[in-house]
Amino acid sequence: MGDDRRFVLTLSCPDRTGIVARITTFLADIGGWITEAAYHSDDESGRFFTRQEIRADSVGFGIDELRRQFAEVAGELAADHWQVADSADRKTVVLLVSREGHCLYELLARWHSGELAADVAVVIGNHVELEPVARLFGLPFRHIPVPRDEVGKATAFERIRREVDAHAPDAIVLARYMQVIPAQLCDAWAGRLINIHHGFLPSFRGARPYHQAYARGVKIIGATCHYVSAELDAGPIIDQDVIRVDHGDSPSDMVRRGRDIEKAVLARGLTYHLQNRVLQDGARTIVFS
Amino acid sequence: MGDDRRFVLTLSCPDRTGIVARITTFLADIGGWITEAAYHSDDESGRFFTRQEIRADSVGFGIDELRRQFAEVAGELAADHWQVADSADRKTVVLLVSREGHCLYELLARWHSGELAADVAVVIGNHVELEPVARLFGLPFRHIPVPRDEVGKATAFERIRREVDAHAPDAIVLARYMQVIPAQLCDAWAGRLINIHHGFLPSFRGARPYHQAYARGVKIIGATCHYVSAELDAGPIIDQDVIRVDHGDSPSDMVRRGRDIEKAVLARGLTYHLQNRVLQDGARTIVFS
Amino acid sequence: MGDDRRFVLTLSCPDRTGIVARITTFLADIGGWITEAAYHSDDESGRFFTRQEIRADSVGFGIDELRRQFAEVAGELAADHWQVADSADRKTVVLLVSREGHCLYELLARWHSGELAADVAVVIGNHVELEPVARLFGLPFRHIPVPRDEVGKATAFERIRREVDAHAPDAIVLARYMQVIPAQLCDAWAGRLINIHHGFLPSFRGARPYHQAYARGVKIIGATCHYVSAELDAGPIIDQDVIRVDHGDSPSDMVRRGRDIEKAVLARGLTYHLQNRVLQDGARTIVFS
Amino acid sequence: MGDDRRFVLTLSCPDRTGIVARITTFLADIGGWITEAAYHSDDESGRFFTRQEIRADSVGFGIDELRRQFAEVAGELAADHWQVADSADRKTVVLLVSREGHCLYELLARWHSGELAADVAVVIGNHVELEPVARLFGLPFRHIPVPRDEVGKATAFERIRREVDAHAPDAIVLARYMQVIPAQLCDAWAGRLINIHHGFLPSFRGARPYHQAYARGVKIIGATCHYVSAELDAGPIIDQDVIRVDHGDSPSDMVRRGRDIEKAVLARGLTYHLQNRVLQDGARTIVFS
Repeated sequence: MGDDRRFVLTLSCPDRTGIVARITTFLADIGGWITEAAYHSDDESGRFFTRQEIRADSVGFGIDELRRQFAEVAGELAADHWQVADSADRKTVVLLVSREGHCLYELLARWHSGELAADVAVVIGNHVELEPVARLFGLPFRHIPVPRDEVGKATAFERIRREVDAHAPDAIVLARYMQVIPAQLCDAWAGRLINIHHGFLPSFRGARPYHQAYARGVKIIGATCHYVSAELDAGPIIDQDVIRVDHGDSPSDMVRRGRDIEKAVLARGLTYHLQNRVLQDGARTIVFS
Repeated sequence: MGDDRRFVLTLSCPDRTGIVARITTFLADIGGWITEAAYHSDDESGRFFTRQEIRADSVGFGIDELRRQFAEVAGELAADHWQVADSADRKTVVLLVSREGHCLYELLARWHSGELAADVAVVIGNHVELEPVARLFGLPFRHIPVPRDEVGKATAFERIRREVDAHAPDAIVLARYMQVIPAQLCDAWAGRLINIHHGFLPSFRGARPYHQAYARGVKIIGATCHYVSAELDAGPIIDQDVIRVDHGDSPSDMVRRGRDIEKAVLARGLTYHLQNRVLQDGARTIVFS
Repeated sequence: MGDDRRFVLTLSCPDRTGIVARITTFLADIGGWITEAAYHSDDESGRFFTRQEIRADSVGFGIDELRRQFAEVAGELAADHWQVADSADRKTVVLLVSREGHCLYELLARWHSGELAADVAVVIGNHVELEPVARLFGLPFRHIPVPRDEVGKATAFERIRREVDAHAPDAIVLARYMQVIPAQLCDAWAGRLINIHHGFLPSFRGARPYHQAYARGVKIIGATCHYVSAELDAGPIIDQDVIRVDHGDSPSDMVRRGRDIEKAVLARGLTYHLQNRVLQDGARTIVFS
Repeated sequence: MGDDRRFVLTLSCPDRTGIVARITTFLADIGGWITEAAYHSDDESGRFFTRQEIRADSVGFGIDELRRQFAEVAGELAADHWQVADSADRKTVVLLVSREGHCLYELLARWHSGELAADVAVVIGNHVELEPVARLFGLPFRHIPVPRDEVGKATAFERIRREVDAHAPDAIVLARYMQVIPAQLCDAWAGRLINIHHGFLPSFRGARPYHQAYARGVKIIGATCHYVSAELDAGPIIDQDVIRVDHGDSPSDMVRRGRDIEKAVLARGLTYHLQNRVLQDGARTIVFS
């Protein structure tokens, strides 16, 4: 890493005057060379958010000491969230897929090329169609079918949970995984469970969003990357994108054209997450992109 | 007008082979010089749609004879809609407004500069704030307050109906008119009543859509121009546009930034309507833009 | 104004550690309630930029004392630019136009509605076509024709200069003014002279950019708001926007469709300028939007 | 294929009345079931363009007879281009790459998933970095270095020519290939040689377009898929896309963010080409997307 190693500080706290002065003075005092800084004061929620990247080699001590010292600042500011991450810590991702492969190809290509700064531990599919794609990239694939009956489903998700948790992943990505995640798992993986929805949320929640969009006659369709919460397609949105459609686009045209934005939005959202760029403010996200 | 005068034919009918051949052969036979042509076959609804602009001076007879002859073609094709319009017929528009002026300024500027090919007969407001804007452009303004009680409201909308119908307008435009139009009027003005909704429908129907968008934490906001039907904010969409927002945009920032797309989308949708570019296919529109 | 009155601090200086700490500590020390803050460190130029809005009533003294105290901070930081503006100071704008009216209507509508926080002192046209528009809004219009010969041209621009300078405007806006401004005036009005170019710069500089765009067969066209420098269409860009076109768009379609983005981009760029949101970094701009 | 097999007719000719009638009557007479039709009359060039997809099983004869009969229609219309393609004919693509892999991954993923309706015959690289990517997908990779000296370069391109021509490809794709193709090869492969330029042409031709864009301070960057002609980055544009940037985006941020649009635009442009959706009108393209 060398010069590229960064300590990434994130913090949120009740807003008041002097917060930036306090944090930046702390960083100046320890000799921290800030390479990227972002701040946000939210007038509605009355909360303050910041993210700071500093060169690891600019600080005269290690991350544990930095955490110890920063804990004092966070305490003074009554922070409800704070973290110091080390860009040298390699992150781990688990992918869940069904039959549609475009998001899987996209993430694996970025992983293979080194663009995605994380390891993919395993690909889990409730169907076998995408096993060859995982194998192509030399990755393990677990086929865990999800039966329709409640008992079978519960057993399947128990297997999935064990498989996922074995890797202690930083992100569990639903890369067009066509199963509803049980509320219990949504809670267990809260803040790490990321979905790509092939619709412009909050419009067109649930199944077949492009067909819903066609039926409603919208002129623009979209895709949404969001954290998963127990309520279906209602978790905090990380990123969205849209494309213009017209009467000439059939539902299947929308499905095809939508793939391009789905995979781009998912890759972007996941990257923001892995780089500690996403902070939560209730149902909303602060994304320091 | 001279060379610029156009006859505009629009037609929709059940789809089958040979429709385009039938129509274009008819036009070729009468010497019609087509300056713009558009076709759409909808696989889902099984219907066919077309719009043809021909130079009026290329046909050896007047619009009545053209209508008579085209009626035969339309009959053969079992058309459920057909029309022959004359671009030389000046169209009439009535505007309904409340307190927000940006859409009114936009439409009046386009009217004043000659860009909007229609006359504005009257501006009707349920508040007086925008009277000076109508007067500025030399247009009559009718202040028709809409009380909250049912009887007062019914009386007010009866006055509005008389005022509007007196002009037999080609379009009745709700230019940020903050009242729900009674179902009876929606029916009476069906296909001519156009609204701009300051949200990306079908998301955020009803009141304060930007505040809804903020609360939901979306990363893109939009505006929707649509025909009004009895169900609130659910009529056929003519056009939409969006802008990207982020955590830094408060609800009032969204209100301010949204104005630019609202007025642009409304002006575009109204222009399409006045140029007979919008055909309806159930809840959807075909827009030959 | 009351609670809405703001002191707006802008500063640029060589980048080094501790700048944010210095500035925010200064603001905290004087009790400044920051309502909006933005920072940018430019790795390429090695310079630092900031803009801070603080509530005027949060500081225990007036703007002169604030300037005096902030001058010390700016001195320590070796600032090459710094300013403290008062949002209560009403700004003045002068508009130059030719025959195309859409940008003029847009700016005057925003001025008339109170959305543009500035006075329009005068509209100057080298043609008379837009005089009625200025008069409509109750504004003075000066017709200063610009002859083709060098002497006549120089005389005309001398008249324009006197007319403009008489108002000491904060912005001189070329709202589709189809004359090249003499280099001498570009220098005299540097940082205050704003143009809207109806092309996506640096593509399609000079005359008839939409026709150039058509001939080149681009699939996207744009508009650019920029500060004017002596080199034609080469000054620092403030904002740009684009729309998608296709083979069906003739040059005149592009002209018509382009108007919507031209006026929106100009209004946005001018607003950023008037709110002291634009800082210059050589040929580039920092826009704290 | 079955119901999915299509005959695709494309034609361009001087514009006059009756062309659509002639073509559609011909298709109706042979029982052709049109599944997609597009027309364009270009007022500037005075030429007419059409593309028709018909179900192969709706015509009572094979493609040779269809070509024979359509040749008569094309003759009557003085067509300067016409073609009847069969969607059952598998197309072939050759890819040229250097060191940047994102476009290669994108095309190979689409090929592997079956989304790209063509075979990839070979990947040719002037560097070896992307050999593992081709191998990953089980594709042959030819390393043909291109020396800087004229003789070595000519020899290298002669090898490339033989390798490419051996496959008689329908498309030769420069997937971020960082060498200028000799004029002779541009001519030999005219209409089949497709490049992705990482800039919004005609701006920023040549090397390091994102650095050029940064230096110029543009607020929007783009990517352009175009046919290659002998003049560098000046061939007919097939598709373009853009993303908004701001002062916070360094040149390397632009490089990274630009990848997403580069690969999407290239994939789209190549697909249009392979589906015979692109017709040329001098330096412009008609894209029936």
